[in-house]
Amino acid sequence: MNIRPILYSVATPTLGAAILLGAALLPGAAALRADEGMWLFSNPPVKLLQEKYGFTPGEGWLEHIQKSSVRFNNGGSGSFVGANGLVMTNHHVGANCLAKISTKENDYVANGFEAKSQIAEPKCPDLELNVLMSIEDVTARVNGAILAGMDFAAAEGARRAEMNTIEKESRDKTGLRSDVVTLYGGGQYHLYRYKRYTDVRLVFAPQKAIAFFGGDTDNFEYPRYDLDICFFRVYEKNEALFVEDYLKWSDRGATEGDLVFVSGHPGRTERLDTLDHLQYLRDFSLPDTLNLLRRREVLLEGYSERSSENERRAERALFSTRNRRKLNIGRISGLEDPAFFEKKKQQEMDLRHLVNRDLDLKQKYGDAWDQIAASIETMRKIRNEYNLFGIGPQRQGAAFNSDLFEIAITLVRLAAESSKPNAERLREYAEAGLDSLKLQLFSPAPIYEDMEILQLGDYFGLMTETLGADNAEVKAVLAGKSPHDRAVELVEGTRLKDVDTRKRIAEGGWKAIENSTDPMIELALKIDPAARQIRQTFEQQVEEPQRQAYAKIANAKFALFGASQYPDATSTLRLAFGEVKGYTENGKAIPSATTLGGTYEHAADHGNKPPFELPANWLQQKAQLNLSTPFNFVSTADIIGGNSGSPVMNRAGEIVGIIFDGNIESLVLDYAYTDQQARAVAVHTSGIIEALRKVYNADRLASELTHRR
Amino acid sequence: MNIRPILYSVATPTLGAAILLGAALLPGAAALRADEGMWLFSNPPVKLLQEKYGFTPGEGWLEHIQKSSVRFNNGGSGSFVGANGLVMTNHHVGANCLAKISTKENDYVANGFEAKSQIAEPKCPDLELNVLMSIEDVTARVNGAILAGMDFAAAEGARRAEMNTIEKESRDKTGLRSDVVTLYGGGQYHLYRYKRYTDVRLVFAPQKAIAFFGGDTDNFEYPRYDLDICFFRVYEKNEALFVEDYLKWSDRGATEGDLVFVSGHPGRTERLDTLDHLQYLRDFSLPDTLNLLRRREVLLEGYSERSSENERRAERALFSTRNRRKLNIGRISGLEDPAFFEKKKQQEMDLRHLVNRDLDLKQKYGDAWDQIAASIETMRKIRNEYNLFGIGPQRQGAAFNSDLFEIAITLVRLAAESSKPNAERLREYAEAGLDSLKLQLFSPAPIYEDMEILQLGDYFGLMTETLGADNAEVKAVLAGKSPHDRAVELVEGTRLKDVDTRKRIAEGGWKAIENSTDPMIELALKIDPAARQIRQTFEQQVEEPQRQAYAKIANAKFALFGASQYPDATSTLRLAFGEVKGYTENGKAIPSATTLGGTYEHAADHGNKPPFELPANWLQQKAQLNLSTPFNFVSTADIIGGNSGSPVMNRAGEIVGIIFDGNIESLVLDYAYTDQQARAVAVHTSGIIEALRKVYNADRLASELTHRR
Repeated sequence: MNIRPILYSVATPTLGAAILLGAALLPGAAALRADEGMWLFSNPPVKLLQEKYGFTPGEGWLEHIQKSSVRFNNGGSGSFVGANGLVMTNHHVGANCLAKISTKENDYVANGFEAKSQIAEPKCPDLELNVLMSIEDVTARVNGAILAGMDFAAAEGARRAEMNTIEKESRDKTGLRSDVVTLYGGGQYHLYRYKRYTDVRLVFAPQKAIAFFGGDTDNFEYPRYDLDICFFRVYEKNEALFVEDYLKWSDRGATEGDLVFVSGHPGRTERLDTLDHLQYLRDFSLPDTLNLLRRREVLLEGYSERSSENERRAERALFSTRNRRKLNIGRISGLEDPAFFEKKKQQEMDLRHLVNRDLDLKQKYGDAWDQIAASIETMRKIRNEYNLFGIGPQRQGAAFNSDLFEIAITLVRLAAESSKPNAERLREYAEAGLDSLKLQLFSPAPIYEDMEILQLGDYFGLMTETLGADNAEVKAVLAGKSPHDRAVELVEGTRLKDVDTRKRIAEGGWKAIENSTDPMIELALKIDPAARQIRQTFEQQVEEPQRQAYAKIANAKFALFGASQYPDATSTLRLAFGEVKGYTENGKAIPSATTLGGTYEHAADHGNKPPFELPANWLQQKAQLNLSTPFNFVSTADIIGGNSGSPVMNRAGEIVGIIFDGNIESLVLDYAYTDQQARAVAVHTSGIIEALRKVYNADRLASELTHRR
Repeated sequence: MNIRPILYSVATPTLGAAILLGAALLPGAAALRADEGMWLFSNPPVKLLQEKYGFTPGEGWLEHIQKSSVRFNNGGSGSFVGANGLVMTNHHVGANCLAKISTKENDYVANGFEAKSQIAEPKCPDLELNVLMSIEDVTARVNGAILAGMDFAAAEGARRAEMNTIEKESRDKTGLRSDVVTLYGGGQYHLYRYKRYTDVRLVFAPQKAIAFFGGDTDNFEYPRYDLDICFFRVYEKNEALFVEDYLKWSDRGATEGDLVFVSGHPGRTERLDTLDHLQYLRDFSLPDTLNLLRRREVLLEGYSERSSENERRAERALFSTRNRRKLNIGRISGLEDPAFFEKKKQQEMDLRHLVNRDLDLKQKYGDAWDQIAASIETMRKIRNEYNLFGIGPQRQGAAFNSDLFEIAITLVRLAAESSKPNAERLREYAEAGLDSLKLQLFSPAPIYEDMEILQLGDYFGLMTETLGADNAEVKAVLAGKSPHDRAVELVEGTRLKDVDTRKRIAEGGWKAIENSTDPMIELALKIDPAARQIRQTFEQQVEEPQRQAYAKIANAKFALFGASQYPDATSTLRLAFGEVKGYTENGKAIPSATTLGGTYEHAADHGNKPPFELPANWLQQKAQLNLSTPFNFVSTADIIGGNSGSPVMNRAGEIVGIIFDGNIESLVLDYAYTDQQARAVAVHTSGIIEALRKVYNADRLASELTHRR
């Protein structure tokens, strides 16, 4: 039940006056000068690429890349790199599956894995991969559902009904996964259709010690030396999937000065946010998030240190927590820089000036900023309740920080929503998405009771501290017990660890829920009315007004600057481009690429101690390696968390690397593009092949990639 | 500049209905049944000891223990254990000095130390030890300064003037350090006079790996196996101090069932707090504190992991932060237990009922609870500003989380306050305390610029997030820069690392401050007016009303229950007592003592990996040890943070152990005593001697302790 976006790997960046605010907010009359943009495949930056790089994609170039690109639904990207369904992604994306198939005796995350034949490839319990097949603009239809005079509450219901209906129609017609995606914050709605693969098996993973070499210390840093790769194979009907569209392996890989492309699923940017919205992020949302992340980090570290088995169980949760903490410190540091904020302010004033001086634009769009400000004020007031129990599609995975509670609330809502017409359902229980939902709900992935008690107890503590012990929901949740005692009672009492029990309850519908004496189901039933209420307030008084207002701002900008603009990231497929290029930091030139040899020096510089301790085979095979082989490299491509595992391609569409991180200076890309120091960090294909052949003797895999023995 | 109380070493305790609420709040007609109380040496529990244990202290018994007890002014306790000024405390108390005399090349904290002769004993740069010589009740005089009709603001000024004056008179007359101490939250004021020692030298310290064996994981846990000891020697005029009062070493140490006494300086309890006050702690104060501690823990861990030198530099700060985090989680878990709170509520209702049914008591004291509630409401409103820049005597050490800023604000205020009459000064700048203040201000202890930048930058971030970027103080502090850039500018620009510079500025008085171009001095000058304003609001509208109201409650209880009551802890000398006694946890009997042999088993159970890795000499000398020697033991004595290093004594006043921790179940002792599971944890004197002789070959020290070769 982990549909949490994996965000790549932050120290406190200093941006100051150095930042070159991208043109996204205000392209003005001039073309985009920088390598900016997470472009829609349905609206690629054709003119920009022609003008800046003299590049024009050939017939089918774009479609080939689109269909070679893969979305990992645990949050991340990848690509087909072989005709037999071979997919490459990052170790830190694949590790979700690695952890789920690991046991105390056999730790795939730490030890890595290589399947000696296809038969030996183990299946991931709940991994879903998506390949984008088509994009259709359904903006008119979605907005057409909103009738004149509808208030926000009515509009929210009408819009949701239309989106649920469009998805169901599409899925019934095509059999493809069908998602209506909100773009430009509400300016456009597109229907994305995906092929959906759920039989995904592990082919190869290196040890975490080299995949995440340098650990949290080096995370979001450069130069780097990480073999952050993992290979899977997609099966259909128990046969390796044959794919026509896969990326050819480049012979030479990326070189300084090359134009490169990145195709992947950036998770979320907020470049189009108004100033009020950014202020809310800076002063409320990010501090709240960071307090929560630090709390979890400290909790999980205390747990991990107790034994090596604890460490193994908490490894993914701790990685994700530390990663998000470092990322969000980068974000807030950007927003806390007065110079950065001043520029954002100036840009917003300029835009509003342009809108207000045109009577038509002013009348149609002029009130958008105030409308957003009002919604933000509502959000500020409800944020504690919404954050704590406003369980919704975005927050499903974080409900009470407990897998078992999440299963319980999903069962409760599944029963309740299934009895309603499709159009009226909560978005995540609409018919088109139920297969994906059930894949998670019925996942046999392990659940550790001790971690559940720890996390749920801590969450109850958090609720108590945030809302006060006398709050009605807190009292209902605790039922007169202390947070810890209540967590013990719930986790030890529930039977939801058992997948068959979940299936039986799901099949039993509402009657099974009502009759259940499972304490976790009872708790979910008890909290659900309040949880739905606060979610409804959010959707009707925050989300819907923002959709309408951001649509106005988007339309104003289309009117002023034309259609060639990219929307903020939304975990859907985007094309970025840039140049392989070093940068200067504290007066020091940072070259674009590192080498395999540098890895050994970097380890020695840190006393060869964890997280800078190299695996045994890396030490043993050092003499066999060509140490000058490029290992990691950077480019100016515009990426963000969710791009983890994205292929980096050359003009010919051949794969030359795989994105796994951004440097510290890139973390502000959430709010504005800059290419002065911000860089996307990738593993170089030459380094991959050298390591596979010489360190791992994985010739079968290397040959499959390169078509050479 | 670290006058932060060292608190001994929490997981989430489960108290539930199990807690036996101490009789402190409501002794009622019955005598105290349990081993409860942190008793004043001027009001010892004579009757209680007679009744429960048949023990009557002999002539001079109490005074001998009092004068053998030592307060460590970095927060902690200790005792004289030899005629030649030999003092024993905990490693985690002594480590403050160990860290300050360490360098990259020579890490006393990690490696330990043994002086082969007195000449080889290195001096601590800023350690002050105090020995209590006399106690005088000055309640009437302090309260006499408050005239009828004075409002809280006037009362605060008059009270402060009187306290400053009493201290100065006493110091001028006796030459002793003289502190007016507030007891029973304001019910009584006592003048404590101390001998003050500042030439303190290191004699012996074990390695941190055995002193803090089990690390944060085992901290606040039992059974334990820690050699948490450290020896210093007090010098006067370059000669070892001869003391008449020191504790004789017991031949047999503590044994199950023994009555034992603990003499030390418990830091702070809140057992007498009203329900509103406890609610404030639960819902605001503790959550705020925990957010801050987790923030620092994560910050310091990230810094520490970068290199072993970083780890060494941050070691004390990280230990203290993790220790306080675990402690405060224990506290809040206690308060978040509805059963615990319900009992506190019942007790308060009972007391108020007793007060209200007596017309005289009602008239004099009946409004106390509402008065406290009003002060709490004010505190709730000002808490963010007060926490962030309400720099005062309690918070001196935390100002901006920067030693350099703390030096700057101290210099600014020293100049300002020195020009005022003694009676009008801020408490910590009154004449009687200036020697101690200057010892800290002019300390040559190392200051690490990189850590200063990290911590100050983070603090600026915290200010921005808490008060908002548009707050006047935030703007004044940041001066248009980002938090990180501003911290770099200040730390790199200041000259206050240099002790002579500090002395020159201090000697130059206000003129030197006004003319200074040091950026840290300029910042301190800029923030001081707002900092004084918020502190004044706190002192006049929170602290003074609470003093008056708690005085009413204390007097009501004296009237109802008699004088034999102990006040909440205040970092002053107290006597506790109890029995050496195991307990039951999760149905399992936990014996009162562990053995040296158990240490090796405990290490093996955790794979002999840090923090369970034993030092080399412990492994080498294992065969020489009598493994059945008692190592750590527990008793029911009523202790709390600040008791670290307190001697444990038998009926004869001989030392049988040294307190270093409380178990998890003891953390709720902040709010109420219980002896069901709560235990004080100590190192056994027999284990100490065995280790000194057989592991460390420290025969010189062992002989000095035991008077045997």
